[in-house]
Amino acid sequence: MLIAKVIGTTISTIKDEKLVGRKLLILRQADETGAAFGKPYVAVDTLDAGIGDLVLTAHGSGGRQTDITKNSPVDAVIMAIIDHTVADGKVAYQG
Amino acid sequence: MLIAKVIGTTISTIKDEKLVGRKLLILRQADETGAAFGKPYVAVDTLDAGIGDLVLTAHGSGGRQTDITKNSPVDAVIMAIIDHTVADGKVAYQG
Amino acid sequence: MLIAKVIGTTISTIKDEKLVGRKLLILRQADETGAAFGKPYVAVDTLDAGIGDLVLTAHGSGGRQTDITKNSPVDAVIMAIIDHTVADGKVAYQG
Amino acid sequence: MLIAKVIGTTISTIKDEKLVGRKLLILRQADETGAAFGKPYVAVDTLDAGIGDLVLTAHGSGGRQTDITKNSPVDAVIMAIIDHTVADGKVAYQG
Amino acid sequence: MLIAKVIGTTISTIKDEKLVGRKLLILRQADETGAAFGKPYVAVDTLDAGIGDLVLTAHGSGGRQTDITKNSPVDAVIMAIIDHTVADGKVAYQG
Repeated sequence: MLIAKVIGTTISTIKDEKLVGRKLLILRQADETGAAFGKPYVAVDTLDAGIGDLVLTAHGSGGRQTDITKNSPVDAVIMAIIDHTVADGKVAYQG
Repeated sequence: MLIAKVIGTTISTIKDEKLVGRKLLILRQADETGAAFGKPYVAVDTLDAGIGDLVLTAHGSGGRQTDITKNSPVDAVIMAIIDHTVADGKVAYQG
Repeated sequence: MLIAKVIGTTISTIKDEKLVGRKLLILRQADETGAAFGKPYVAVDTLDAGIGDLVLTAHGSGGRQTDITKNSPVDAVIMAIIDHTVADGKVAYQG
Repeated sequence: MLIAKVIGTTISTIKDEKLVGRKLLILRQADETGAAFGKPYVAVDTLDAGIGDLVLTAHGSGGRQTDITKNSPVDAVIMAIIDHTVADGKVAYQG
Repeated sequence: MLIAKVIGTTISTIKDEKLVGRKLLILRQADETGAAFGKPYVAVDTLDAGIGDLVLTAHGSGGRQTDITKNSPVDAVIMAIIDHTVADGKVAYQG
């Protein structure tokens, strides 16, 4: 899984019918401190995540192992919202 | 999923029989503002996307979760055409 | 899928039994003009592609969605030979 | 599989129900000597790995081929804790 | 598939039970001449490959399409040992 920060949303009228009603959020990968880096990607939100949240995203077929994403043409899902991280024995991020 | 801009098409006479009649578009990854970057890749179009459209592409087995791509030797599909994106509380792209 | 140029072949005596008789070609990724870049990779050829051909390769489980590669320990297949590409309204590559 | 060093943990209250009780560790990829590099990623721990351990992680659907991760929205699992590595005929890492 | 050179081995006492008795080799990706580059990764050996051998590795679910790796938490397998490669009409590597 990747640590990622939610930075925005995408809105689409024309889409695969299995995506109707799905929330597609824009994220950037982040490190254990919550610092974002790299180019944006998009994942289905199943947890009502908000802008600025630090989350975990599962990719590939792992992104379809939820009731909401099963059998849909998607490859990434937000499967956890991070409360905090611990690294090197210290709290590295606190949500 | 990746945000991507449609930049062209590929035409093939010799191809796997499951690809007959499929539209294979060339895309470049893009950020939330629609700015393209990086090297081109190819995805099956199931939504009648046009050159210049900003779209979302699902990769891997996710690219075969549509009626058109099911059981085909493909690894990417256009599954949404983006109307607009919102990032940092502002409209970042408007189609 | 990736656009790729066929640059060579690999010959193996010791291999998984499901690969006996399979043609394993060496490719380099290419852009829409046919210009190759990056490091080589290997894909199963199901279309009798030749050295110098510009092709499309499907990766991951998509590489096993053909009669020839089904259930084999492979992760990439040549599933189309490109005749020509069009980008920005012009022919970008002509085979 | 990737060689990786365990550097921390993530704690989440809001998560997919299949992740309840799962330990999600933060890792950085490492080379055969145990030197870490690159950005962090997260994998499910099924072996009671500890901070500082050098481990192997399996990715993609391979990450779900354990009793603990089966059918869960995850894409990486720790499936071995490395005792030592040998490279170029010498012990390169000793845990 | 990737061309790769076998550079070492990993030894693990604590591992998923499906990996007992499996040989996990350390490899580095190589080009068509056999020159290695990049960071090491690990694959299951099913062909009794030796240190220094140039091999092909299949990744993702492709890594589990052998009798030895089926249903195991692995994502890469050595599925061919390369005798020689031909590129640009010449032998580029001879094992």
